[in-house]
Amino acid sequence: MSLNTDWFTERHLASGSAISFRIKEKLHAEQTPFQHIEIYATTDWGHLMVIDGCVMLTSRDNFLYHEMMSHPVLYTHTSPKRVVIIGGGDCGTLREILKHREVETVVQCDIDERVTRLSELYFPELCESNGDPRATLMFDDGIAYMKALDAESVDVVIVDSTDPIGPAEGLFNQAFYASCLRALRPGGILVQQSESPLVHVELIKAMRDAMRNAGFDHLRTLPFPQPCYPTGWWSCTLARKHLDLGTFRERGAATKQFATRYYNVDTHKAALAMPEFLRAALE
Amino acid sequence: MSLNTDWFTERHLASGSAISFRIKEKLHAEQTPFQHIEIYATTDWGHLMVIDGCVMLTSRDNFLYHEMMSHPVLYTHTSPKRVVIIGGGDCGTLREILKHREVETVVQCDIDERVTRLSELYFPELCESNGDPRATLMFDDGIAYMKALDAESVDVVIVDSTDPIGPAEGLFNQAFYASCLRALRPGGILVQQSESPLVHVELIKAMRDAMRNAGFDHLRTLPFPQPCYPTGWWSCTLARKHLDLGTFRERGAATKQFATRYYNVDTHKAALAMPEFLRAALE
Repeated sequence: MSLNTDWFTERHLASGSAISFRIKEKLHAEQTPFQHIEIYATTDWGHLMVIDGCVMLTSRDNFLYHEMMSHPVLYTHTSPKRVVIIGGGDCGTLREILKHREVETVVQCDIDERVTRLSELYFPELCESNGDPRATLMFDDGIAYMKALDAESVDVVIVDSTDPIGPAEGLFNQAFYASCLRALRPGGILVQQSESPLVHVELIKAMRDAMRNAGFDHLRTLPFPQPCYPTGWWSCTLARKHLDLGTFRERGAATKQFATRYYNVDTHKAALAMPEFLRAALE
Repeated sequence: MSLNTDWFTERHLASGSAISFRIKEKLHAEQTPFQHIEIYATTDWGHLMVIDGCVMLTSRDNFLYHEMMSHPVLYTHTSPKRVVIIGGGDCGTLREILKHREVETVVQCDIDERVTRLSELYFPELCESNGDPRATLMFDDGIAYMKALDAESVDVVIVDSTDPIGPAEGLFNQAFYASCLRALRPGGILVQQSESPLVHVELIKAMRDAMRNAGFDHLRTLPFPQPCYPTGWWSCTLARKHLDLGTFRERGAATKQFATRYYNVDTHKAALAMPEFLRAALE
C-alpha cells in the first residue's frame, strides 16, 4: 500500500488522511528564516509548492482558492478601495484583487520574501499583476503591520496564510482580529482562510468566537472545493464591521469585466449555502 | 515521501493524485465473482470499503454522496413513487430514498450480493431501512434489469455504481440510457454519479452526449464535495424525460420531515451552480 518515491505526500495526521501528487522532479528546496519551501514539477498538476511539508498550491487547482478568497469579499463590500493582504506571498490573491477596477490600493504583507521570489519563478501566471501601480509588496510581519495601520483606513483585510501552526499562528487569535477591526472602516470586511468544513469545525468555531469577541458583528463561513488541501474541501470566513453579510453586489458580479474559472454569481451564492451539519455546529 | 503500511492509499493514476486513510486494521478481504472487496477500520473515518483498489465509502463522509444522489433528484421530480437503484449495494442511497414518504416502491439491483452483506456487517447504519416493506433488494445484472422493465413504469432511476471500468462499464453508454428512458414515465429522471468535475470533464461530456443521444431532453450536472473520492470533489448528472430540470420542490425540501447532514434547500441550489470552467466545458 505504500507509494513509490515519485509521489509527494502530505499526511494530515489530525484527520488521518493524506493527499499525494505524482511528481516528475523536485525543482527546488530551501530553508528560509521562517520555513522550509519545496517546489516540485508534477505529472498532472503543474508546479507544486510545499511549505513545512504542507501543500500550499498547485498550478492546476489554485484558481479555486484564490478566486474564493478574493471575489466574494470584494463583491460583498459596497466600495472596496483599500485592500490589505496578510500573507498571500504567492501573489495569486493579489492578482484576483487587482482585477477589480474600483480597488485603488492593495498592500500585500508576507513575512517571507522567498515565497514571492519562488512564485515569480514557478508560478509566473500568479505574479503577472505584481507590477500594477496600485500594488505594494511588503515583506514584513503581518501582525505588526496590522497593529500599526491607521484606524479606519482600509476596506478589506484578506488573511491568506498557512495553517495556524508555525509562522501564521498569531493570525488566528483575538488580538490580531482586534487590530483588523480597528484598521477597517465601518462596513469593512476581514476574510480569512478557515480550513476544512469537515475536519476543522472546532478550529472554525474558535476563529469565529475570537472574531466575535474582537468586536465583529457579522460572520459567514463559505465552503468551497480545493482538491490539494486536506479533505479537498476548504472554507473562508468573512467577518464584517457593523454591517451584515447577507447580500452582495450581484449585478456587479454578473457584469464583471474580467475572466474567472470558478467564481460567478451562482458559485458565490453556492458558497453562502450552509450544509446542515455545519449550520448545526456553528449555531 | 512514502507512506507507512498503516495507510490505505488509492492512487488515481489518470489524474496523478492519491488519497490515503490511516488504518487501524484490515477487517476483511474477499474476491467475489465480480470484484475484490476490502474492509478496513480507520483511525478517523470509521470503516472504509474498497472495491478493486478504489475507495467506495467511509463511515465519516458517505453522507455527502448518498444525500446528493437521492434528495436533489427526488425533490426535482414532482411525484416520485416508483424508484429503481442500479448498484447502490451499500444501501446508503436506499436509506435516503426511503426517507421520502411519497415513495411507494424502491427496487435496488446490485450485481454483487456480497457488497450488501458486508455493508450490513460494517455499515449497519446504512442498512437500517433494508427491512422497509417498500424496498426490494435484488442481486442481478442492472443492465438486463433495466432492459426488461415495463415501458413507462418508474419515476426515478438512480445509477449508484463504481467507476466506468470493470463491472459498471455497461452503465455508462447510450444503450443503457435508452433502456432507462424507455422505463421512465414522462417527467421521469435518471441520475448517475458522474465523477470529478475537475479531472473527469471529458467523461462527464461523454456521459451527457450519450444521455442526449439516447433521447433525454434536459441535463444538469451537480457538483458536491466528497473527500474520499479523487480530488475530493464529485458530481452527479440528472437527465430528464420531456420536462426541464431548472426547478425543484423547494417548499417540500424546506419542510422535509427527516434529518440530513448535508442536504437542504440551500445546498440543493448550491449544487445547481455551475463553476465558470465547467459551464464553458459543457456548453
